[in-house]
Amino acid sequence: MTPEEALARARLTLPGPHPTVANYAMAVRTGSLLFVSGHGPFVDGRPEHIGTLGAGLSVADGQQAARVVALNMLGTIKAELGELSRVRRFVKLLVMVNATPGFTEHHRVADGATDLLVTVFGENGRPTRSAMGVASLPLGFAVEIEAVLEVVTSEAQA
Amino acid sequence: MTPEEALARARLTLPGPHPTVANYAMAVRTGSLLFVSGHGPFVDGRPEHIGTLGAGLSVADGQQAARVVALNMLGTIKAELGELSRVRRFVKLLVMVNATPGFTEHHRVADGATDLLVTVFGENGRPTRSAMGVASLPLGFAVEIEAVLEVVTSEAQA
Amino acid sequence: MTPEEALARARLTLPGPHPTVANYAMAVRTGSLLFVSGHGPFVDGRPEHIGTLGAGLSVADGQQAARVVALNMLGTIKAELGELSRVRRFVKLLVMVNATPGFTEHHRVADGATDLLVTVFGENGRPTRSAMGVASLPLGFAVEIEAVLEVVTSEAQA
Repeated sequence: MTPEEALARARLTLPGPHPTVANYAMAVRTGSLLFVSGHGPFVDGRPEHIGTLGAGLSVADGQQAARVVALNMLGTIKAELGELSRVRRFVKLLVMVNATPGFTEHHRVADGATDLLVTVFGENGRPTRSAMGVASLPLGFAVEIEAVLEVVTSEAQA
Repeated sequence: MTPEEALARARLTLPGPHPTVANYAMAVRTGSLLFVSGHGPFVDGRPEHIGTLGAGLSVADGQQAARVVALNMLGTIKAELGELSRVRRFVKLLVMVNATPGFTEHHRVADGATDLLVTVFGENGRPTRSAMGVASLPLGFAVEIEAVLEVVTSEAQA
Repeated sequence: MTPEEALARARLTLPGPHPTVANYAMAVRTGSLLFVSGHGPFVDGRPEHIGTLGAGLSVADGQQAARVVALNMLGTIKAELGELSRVRRFVKLLVMVNATPGFTEHHRVADGATDLLVTVFGENGRPTRSAMGVASLPLGFAVEIEAVLEVVTSEAQA
């Protein structure tokens, strides 16, 4: 089963390219690593999932936002690599949760992203990870996530 | 002197495996790099060093928390590599300090971690580093740290 | 045009070495990657651009701080590599903005750094990027930025 088939089986549709809101690249390849910029929970090109964990948004809300962000990252990665099967494994996620000082469930919010990646890529979708509560995020997003992946290079398929 | 001997000389004991509180890997190898997930100050498997720098916790408290986190990371790295001597060098730490808006001593808190790494690995334990104050952390931790290391690979010992 | 010539053309002068305020390395090379520590807006060796976005500092203030930080990073990179032309490309920036909970323009602040890098390096200066609002930063800095670059290695010039 390819990652695309796993997405279809989970009834998930990859979004189009993530809007670029400023002067940066969405993804950069260096050697066998692919660095992916911080993504936000855009839905149909519009910012959604605005708000703060611990002040209005529940853990379930945050998990849904993290899931949307992960799906947006997959859209960027697919556009970059052509086929998601060229992902060898997710290496690292940095999960930035827009959260109050008293919030303590960032790791559960972040599972919204990694659960999706494991659904699509199996064990290769389980990365190292840090989750933290930030004071604020661009456009008021509830969650922002950046990633590092190992990809299959055309030069070395090993 | 091996890193393990340096630890013993400093009367430090490596903890067992760090509890995994959510869906992610504690460490992932890619090429000669080892990415290590954000670790917290667990002691004997229980979360300790809970609180906020600038609101109850002193710089010395934060340094102790950072030291505990670094020791926990070494436990994970030892479990991953077998021997700490397979660490070629620490490349990067991201030090997330649970801190109030007015706090300004994050770099001193972070020294609690890097001082320990330099004790154990010498110059190879001195990484690049960012220290910052976050709004909140999982389980209320005072400090969370993630790392990137260069390791000796079996394929290329150069 | 070399990066140094592009700097001169933009009437920009590289600062001397960035002060090290704690126990860490300013830059570490591993393979073809150069990791650069979080830098702050030091000017002539003194901390400037102190304050919080959303509470006294404007987006333009933050952009100027980010620009100063980027210039300081270039000073470190020049000291490390000898020539800026040994930068193959900027791979990633993590832009930490000292910001209030209500601030939403972190990406515009971060453009202060990436606009400078694109001026100096062209397309190779446009990295992946995350921008976020942190609760506080060392010394009260408005902005801190860390970077990962791909560099030309002496072993492999490809």
